[in-house]
Amino acid sequence: MIRAMIGFLMRLPHNSVNTVSVQPRADDGVYLRLIPGALMTRQLQKPEILNVEAVARSRLFTVEAVDLAFSNGARRVYERMRPSGREAVMIVPIIDNHLILIQEYAVGLESYELGFPKGLIDPGETPFEAANRELKEEAGFGAHQLEQLGKLTMAPSYFSSQMNIVVAEDLYLEKLEGDEPEPLPQVHWPLDNLLALLDEPDFREARNVSALFLVREWLVKQGRLSY
Amino acid sequence: MIRAMIGFLMRLPHNSVNTVSVQPRADDGVYLRLIPGALMTRQLQKPEILNVEAVARSRLFTVEAVDLAFSNGARRVYERMRPSGREAVMIVPIIDNHLILIQEYAVGLESYELGFPKGLIDPGETPFEAANRELKEEAGFGAHQLEQLGKLTMAPSYFSSQMNIVVAEDLYLEKLEGDEPEPLPQVHWPLDNLLALLDEPDFREARNVSALFLVREWLVKQGRLSY
Repeated sequence: MIRAMIGFLMRLPHNSVNTVSVQPRADDGVYLRLIPGALMTRQLQKPEILNVEAVARSRLFTVEAVDLAFSNGARRVYERMRPSGREAVMIVPIIDNHLILIQEYAVGLESYELGFPKGLIDPGETPFEAANRELKEEAGFGAHQLEQLGKLTMAPSYFSSQMNIVVAEDLYLEKLEGDEPEPLPQVHWPLDNLLALLDEPDFREARNVSALFLVREWLVKQGRLSY
Repeated sequence: MIRAMIGFLMRLPHNSVNTVSVQPRADDGVYLRLIPGALMTRQLQKPEILNVEAVARSRLFTVEAVDLAFSNGARRVYERMRPSGREAVMIVPIIDNHLILIQEYAVGLESYELGFPKGLIDPGETPFEAANRELKEEAGFGAHQLEQLGKLTMAPSYFSSQMNIVVAEDLYLEKLEGDEPEPLPQVHWPLDNLLALLDEPDFREARNVSALFLVREWLVKQGRLSY
C-alpha cells in the first residue's frame, strides 16, 4: 500500500477541447491527482547513452549492449538489436470485397501463420514501390492504388523496427520472383466479416491484428463498411 | 504477367455458413479459381527441422540457425531467437472511464514510448497473477477484476514471443517495487475518445495498438461504449 501522494498525468487528445473533468478520489486514504493537459508541456529527459558495444553477431542479427545514465542518476546496461535503418512495409490487399492474406512458415513458432504480405523496403525504394514489389512477389498482384494507413513499431525496448501499413486496391495480375522457398497459399477473407479473422488461431501477429483494425476503420470512414 | 492458372483459397470464418459465392473472374486472360472452404481441410506440410544450432549469444539473446527442408525439397537456413518458453502479459487498466498508460524509455527507438504496462510471466505464475504483479510494479494499482482479451505474437518468423492481453478493472492502490530505473509517468486516457490515441506519435507499438482495438471491441460488446 502506498502512502505518498501519487501524481497522475492526463493527456488530452489532440482533437479534444480542454474540458476533461478532474475528479479527485479518495481510495484507501490516498488522494489521486489528475492534471489535465500536464503532459503536453512536460518534457521527459532522455537517458544519456554513454556507450554502445556489439556483444553478439550472427548472419542476420547484431546484439548491442547500451550503457545508459538516466536523468535521476540510475545506470543500466540494456541490450537491443542494432538498428538497421531500413523500414518495412505490410500490404493489405483488397480485391472483390475480400482481403488477400498469405500463409507462410514461421520458424519462430514452427507453424504456418496467416498474415498480410510484407517485406523490407529496399534502398532507394519508396514505401509504395516496396509495397507493390512485395505484393507482386508474395501474392502475384500489382496495385494501381496504394494508401498508407499508419506506421507501427514492435517491442521498441529491443528493436527499432518500423512497419508501414499500406492498403492496396485496383489490383492487376503480375508475378515477380521472390526469395520464398515455396509458393505462398492465399486466403481471401470477406470484408463483411473482418473481425472473424481474430478467431483464427494462426492469425494473431500484432502487426497483422493492428492492420486488420486499421483497414476496418479506414473502410468505415469511407462509408464502404459498417460496424 | 503470369500465364499459368493460380489457385486461390477462401477460408470460411468459423461462425459463417458455407454460402460464400464463388465468382470466377477473367482478368488479363487468367482465370482465378476461388475454392470456398478448401483450406479448412487442406493441411500444409511443415518443413522438417534438420538441425538447430546456437550461432550467437549475449546476456539476453541467443540466436539460433535452423536448417530446414521444405516439403518441396527446398533447403534453407533460417535464423531465429531461441524460444524462451516464457509468455508475457500486457495489462489494459481501466479506472474512472479512463485507460491507464505509462511512459517508458525504449532504447530500441531511443525515445519515450506510451503504452500499457507489461512484463514476463514468472515461473509458477498464472497470466492473471503476472498481470496483477506487473500492474502493481509499473502503475501502483492492483485489480480485483481481470479478463483476458486475447494472445498476440510478434514477428513469428524470428520470435516465439506470446503476449497475453488482460483488461484490469476494479482497481485498488498497491505499489510493488519493480526493477525500473526511474518512476514511470502515467497518462489517463478517456474511453470516449479511445482512437485519438492513434494520433499520438509515441503510441504506435503493434501490441499496444492491437490491445487498444481489442479493449474497444470488448467495451462495445458490453454496451459500455459505442463506436
